[in-house]
Formats: sequence, structure tokens, C-alpha cells
Amino acid sequence: MPRRIVIIGAHAAGVDAASAARKTDRTAEITILTEEKNPGYSRCGLPFVIGGHIPSFSNLIVFPQAYYQMMKINLKTETRATAINTQNKTVETQTKDGKTETIPYDSLIIATGASSFMPPIKGKEKQGIYSLRTLEDGEAIDNAVKNGAKTAVVMGAGLIGLETAIGLQERGLKVTVLEMLPQILPQMLDADMAKPIQEMLQEKGINIVVGKAVEEITGAEKATGVIAGGEQFNGDLIISAFGVRANTQLAVNAGIALGDTKAIKTNARMETNIKDIYAVGDCAESTHIVTQRPALMQFGTVAVRHGKVAGINAAGGYALFTGVLGSAVSRLYDIEVGSTGLTEVAAQRARIDYVTGTISSKTKADYYPGALPIKVKLVVEKESQRIIGTQIFGGEEVTQRINAISFVIQKQMTVRELAKADTAYAPPVCETWEPLVLAAEMVLMKLR
Amino acid sequence: MPRRIVIIGAHAAGVDAASAARKTDRTAEITILTEEKNPGYSRCGLPFVIGGHIPSFSNLIVFPQAYYQMMKINLKTETRATAINTQNKTVETQTKDGKTETIPYDSLIIATGASSFMPPIKGKEKQGIYSLRTLEDGEAIDNAVKNGAKTAVVMGAGLIGLETAIGLQERGLKVTVLEMLPQILPQMLDADMAKPIQEMLQEKGINIVVGKAVEEITGAEKATGVIAGGEQFNGDLIISAFGVRANTQLAVNAGIALGDTKAIKTNARMETNIKDIYAVGDCAESTHIVTQRPALMQFGTVAVRHGKVAGINAAGGYALFTGVLGSAVSRLYDIEVGSTGLTEVAAQRARIDYVTGTISSKTKADYYPGALPIKVKLVVEKESQRIIGTQIFGGEEVTQRINAISFVIQKQMTVRELAKADTAYAPPVCETWEPLVLAAEMVLMKLR
Repeated sequence: MPRRIVIIGAHAAGVDAASAARKTDRTAEITILTEEKNPGYSRCGLPFVIGGHIPSFSNLIVFPQAYYQMMKINLKTETRATAINTQNKTVETQTKDGKTETIPYDSLIIATGASSFMPPIKGKEKQGIYSLRTLEDGEAIDNAVKNGAKTAVVMGAGLIGLETAIGLQERGLKVTVLEMLPQILPQMLDADMAKPIQEMLQEKGINIVVGKAVEEITGAEKATGVIAGGEQFNGDLIISAFGVRANTQLAVNAGIALGDTKAIKTNARMETNIKDIYAVGDCAESTHIVTQRPALMQFGTVAVRHGKVAGINAAGGYALFTGVLGSAVSRLYDIEVGSTGLTEVAAQRARIDYVTGTISSKTKADYYPGALPIKVKLVVEKESQRIIGTQIFGGEEVTQRINAISFVIQKQMTVRELAKADTAYAPPVCETWEPLVLAAEMVLMKLR
Repeated sequence: MPRRIVIIGAHAAGVDAASAARKTDRTAEITILTEEKNPGYSRCGLPFVIGGHIPSFSNLIVFPQAYYQMMKINLKTETRATAINTQNKTVETQTKDGKTETIPYDSLIIATGASSFMPPIKGKEKQGIYSLRTLEDGEAIDNAVKNGAKTAVVMGAGLIGLETAIGLQERGLKVTVLEMLPQILPQMLDADMAKPIQEMLQEKGINIVVGKAVEEITGAEKATGVIAGGEQFNGDLIISAFGVRANTQLAVNAGIALGDTKAIKTNARMETNIKDIYAVGDCAESTHIVTQRPALMQFGTVAVRHGKVAGINAAGGYALFTGVLGSAVSRLYDIEVGSTGLTEVAAQRARIDYVTGTISSKTKADYYPGALPIKVKLVVEKESQRIIGTQIFGGEEVTQRINAISFVIQKQMTVRELAKADTAYAPPVCETWEPLVLAAEMVLMKLR
């Protein structure tokens, strides 16, 4: 009898799990269940459709129907998994028409993802509060803009909040972003690195208000404004970008254990505490490569890696997931901003004795026209002198610098080694002394 | 008495050595000798001035006079070092006016660089054969173009040859590049990676002829053509880009030992075989990080690192140079091309049992407009599964991918670790599965 692999959830983690399972076991029966109508799209692209950089939401569908056919994956859309029976090894499902079915599994992969989170704010039940998590969310915001929205209030200055704010501003709206913490991008950046980006966004015309918590959502039935820090902010569009929370209810009901981060606890094979059940993607916890503590990194890059490992294991193979660093990047107007490993704040939280080094440099030889500014901050564990984090923003090649430092952290490179590392150079593409190397020098000066 | 540090040569290696020496010893007497009139300029920028990307050759002067004054460095231009007396610890010098002087040193740093190399070809003594090594070379080529040169023949398809060819083509000349080997960029790339770049250059209108050695330079007194592989190629401009050779005569005359590469042999402190004499830059040998064998990498990045290490040591400090990987990059029209570590050919030469993996991918999410192609080739040592080299070309962020792999090689990352490494992602700047990671997967498939 072929191995029956059931996957709950059909985005990055779920579909990549199915693909990996198929490549591992050519004869397995692979079923994906999703309550959504449009599975397998890129959430990360949503703000860029709103901003008009990508023509249509349908462009974001990464896995078309033909893909599932080619991979012989049985995709059941608009089908909700209502319960997992870990004794009988079955999943109870219900279609949107109310049809129920009991689906047996040999291996089960939970990829239930995460949902937009709304804190218990007065007025949070009001209509017309948008979030940007699903294709439908994106279409709703897009429609509101097409229907004449002129102003927007975005609650939350994380990446999604800022990307959405920029998308709306590019569509001509006047946008205010509210952030409870005293800085933007608090997960990615320390305050000193966040400040120049906040100023850049303000220069572009986005009103950013930090250090003010949203206390109330105002309006009659429909949300038309927000009170934050005692101040009233009105908007035709009220957008909730407080972040997301792992969807764990289905797992919890089945007795699957959560970890410290309140996401599903997994081991290096992406196994949960229950045999033959795996958890992947935004609902699943990982281990942080630096702190070796549980970490929840809800990124597409992590989701596809989780999915691949769980898919191989669920299909009888053997694969390990080696942990997360939280490597993240985005482009905000013309500025790329990225981060990997621990910020200074995260290092403090992990009680790591650290030292930092920051450098401002350029992306090309000084004499080469078009050189753009770039700023690098390194965080280094003091005793071992190992690099444990970096934050970068600038005009070019930020992403691959982040990846370079991600590799460096994983291989426990010391700041001294980085200061001496061999790098490439040509006037049109970089400086003789690579900014990463210069930042390492700044750290060394403090260590001497 | 202050320490007397004498440096012969005033480009990247020499000036950086002087700067590092000054930072190490605030009271040292530091003298730089150079026979050139214009020291401290960037050679790497020369082709881009010819191409019109940089307004003027004077833009390339990285260290203006004020720098030497600020750093209290005694710069003697148009002053040739004619001999080194290692017993008395003196350098004999002669100015262009014939004035001689004997300069004593406590530490001597030889940064005599390299010179354009011309093989023993019939007609090589003819006038009007240009090379592109010095500012004066650049001005001569520029003048020839201004004076109406319409066609050019470039001998050699290394980076300088190609960059010069492109510069001339951008100025409107019809350009032919001749290469003895069957491929372009033989130091940087394997044939499979070089071929698409050759095709791209040909599509841009540069005539590239590979596999034909130059046999004769033709013309009456002035060079007006080249015979290669029995075929005649005529040009208003004949350019020699056969590469460079280390300037070692001064050192050899003083009894300083050369290494296997025929450049000056050095240890990790950049010391030669003679006490208190250092060698740095294009005239000095290093150790290759992968092969652990002597290697001569005549790059600006290596020169400044050599200089820094020698400068610190010469001034009484302690610094080590950790070796070279040959990390190199350039932009040829809109294509960035880079390489680090060993090519397949270099791995064969080093008798390393290797396996490769190559992937074609894109620089942005597939659905994001403006995604550009990128191609990555990894070379992996088979037994250890360690990455030992990479070659990349594509439209964006090639340089930092090269640097990332350079770091990875230095930290002995295995291809399995790279395939699992944490990377950053956002639709406008990269793909979910980073091409470097995909290339690692390709290698793993062969290793299974």
C-alpha cells in the first residue's frame, strides 16, 4: 500500500513539503488540505501589488494547478481540517459546502501558518479594519484604494506595515504609520539603525509616529480613525499590521505540544511530540543558531526549508533542519534594509556580552559615479569574538551582504577573521575595502 | 631616534603600508619612494575612464598630496630606488634629474608592483603598442581615441583586456579581442561559464577571437595590425593586455628570494628572507587559502591587505596575512562577473578530486518585474564536501555573492551546510531559494 502523506496548509511550507515528499517517495499518496480558495501564493509580494510594482494579485500564485497535477499531489481547496485523531491517524475535514470526510494518514504535516494578530483594543470589532495577510486582504485594500480612499493609518511599523504604507503612498494616499515602540522595525534593527530609515520614510512623505500605542479604533460602525497616545489619527483605510500569531488550535486540540514561543514545538526533523506528525512554516518553532534557544521566525525562507525537511522525513527519508538566524531583507523605496542574527537588543535579551561596530561607506569606488551610501552594524560576542548579528541598509547589494554574514555566523567566524577576509573589488560594483570588513575593523578597535 | 621606515612604491600596497605604519608608530619617519609622477591612483579605474564612465583620469588619484601631509609621510616622487644594501640597511635612489641619495632604513617595504608583460612576439618593439597599466597609459589611449582611432585590436581576454575593449567600444571604436586560450577570462572562469559571457560581448559588437595566439605585430614603424593563428587583424590602436609580471629585479639584486610564482617570497607577516625587509602588493607572493600553496594574486584588494600587514609589522606591531583566494569581480556592460577560490581547471591543476554544481536562476522573485538572470557554479572538494570555489555571472549582487562564498571557503563550509543555510528574502531583491543554495543542492545531488 502506498504511504499516505497528508499536509494541512498550502502555502510555502505545505507545498514545498509536498514537493519534497514526492521527490522522496514516487508512489506516496500526497494530499494537501487548505481552507483557502487560492493556495500557493507569495504573501511577501502583496504590498508590491498594492504599490503597483507587480501588475496583479494573480501574478503571486507561485504554484498553479498544473504544478499539483505534475507532482501528482491531491490538492483539496476550500477544505478545512477540523480535527486530528492521533490514535486512528486520521484528519477530519469539512468543505465549505459542509461535506465532511475522514482522511487517514501515515505521515501528517501541519502547515497551518499564522494569522494577523489584533491586540485587545477598544473598537477592534469595527468593520473596515484591513490587514494584509491573504490575497483576499490584498484585493480588499486594492479595492478600497480604487474606490477613492485618500488617507490611511497603518498600525505597526514592522516590515509588512512599512511595505504596505509605502505601497499605499505610491498609490497616492496620505499615510500615517503608528508604532507603540520608540522605533520602527524593532525585530530587525536597533534604534540607531532604525532612525535614519524612519527619517528617509518621513522625507518621502510618510508620517511616522513612534512610541504611541493604539488605544482605540474610532468610527461609528466602520473604523475611520485611531487614537494612539491620546492623539486622534483619521484615515479612509485603517490597517492592522500588528504582526501574526501561529495557528495552533488544531494542533493543540490533538494534544500536540507548543514550545516557549507558543508555536508548535519541533525537533530537528520537524517532528512534533506525536509520532508521524510534523509541523512546518509559520506555525512551527525552530532553534536559533546563535542562542540555541527556541525561536519563531515566520519567514518564507524558513517555511520552504521547514517544508523540505518535513517532506523528506514524512516520506521515509532523513533530513535535518539546522536552525534559524532570522535573516530578513526588504526594499523600502530605494533603500534596501536587512538583518541577520541578533540585534544589540536581542543580544541583551539573551544575556550575551557583546560589542558592536558600525561603519558608513559606499557601494562603489569613491570616484565611480553613482556610488550609494551603505551602513553596516556588526554585533560580536565579546569573549569568543564571534560575529552574532548584523544590520545593514543602503542602496545596493544589501541582501547578499546579509547572506554573507548569515553564513559567517553559522560558521562561527570571528570578527578578526572577517577583518582579514579576502573580498572582491571592481570600481563599478564595490569599494576596495568592503564595508563588512571595515565594520569588523571598527569592532576590533573596541576589542583591543 | 625615531624608527625609519622606507617604502618603495606608492600605489595601493605602498601607501596603505605607510598609513598602517603611521597608525602603529606615531613617531616613525616614513618615506615613500616612487619613480612615478602620479602616485596613489587606482589602476582598476583606468578602463572606466576610457569608457567615459568616470570623467577624468585625475579622478582616480585616491591619495592626494594632502593625505601624505596629514599622515606625515615623506613622499618622494620621480625618485627611483636603484639598489638596496641589506648589510648597511640603506636604499640608493636617483631622481629623474640624476640626483642620487642614500636613504637608511630600519624597516624596508618593497612595493614595486608589476609591469605589463609582452611575450617575445615578432614586431613587439614596434611603436604604438599600448598597454593599460599606468595613468600615462590611459591618457595615451584616450588621446589616440581623441585623435581619431576607429578600430582597435586588444591582445588578451583577461579582465583588463575585456574592460579596455568595452571602454573603447563605448567610445565608438570597432574592437577585436584576441585570446590564445580557447576561452575568455581563463583565470577567473571555466569554459562553460566563460562562453555565455563571450557571446554577450559579441552581441554587443565586440569581435572576440579565441584559440589564436598572436604571432606577429605588423606595420612599418608603427604597429597597425596583428597576425594571430595565421590571420591578419588590423587596428588603429594595438593594445597589449597579456597580463603583468612582478617587478622583482631590485629585490633579486639585493639577494631577496623569489618564490614558486616568481614573485617575492613572503611569510605570513609579509617578511622576505632578509630581516626587516617586507614585500607587498603585485610583486609579492601569498599563500592560497585552499591549496595552501604559493599564489600570486595581483589585485588591489590583496595589495591593500598586504600593505596593512607589512606596515604594522614594519612599525613594530604584529599582524598576519591569512592568504588569498583570488576573489575578483567586474562589470562587463550590464553583466557582473565574479570568481573566488578554485575554478574546475585550477582544482585539476592542484590535483583535487572535486565535483561541481551549476544553476541558472533569477535575481528577484519570478513574478517581480525586472528580475535578471544569474548563473552560479560551485566547485566542491569531493571527500570533505567543502566548497573550494565559485564562479558567478548575472545582473545583480554578484559581488557580494562572491564575497559570501569567499567567507564560506575560508570557514570551510561544506556544500551540505550551504544547502541548508539561512538566507534572506524579499520579492524585489532576491528569490526565496537563493541561487547559491540551489547550486549547493545541485552539487549534493551528484554526491548522493
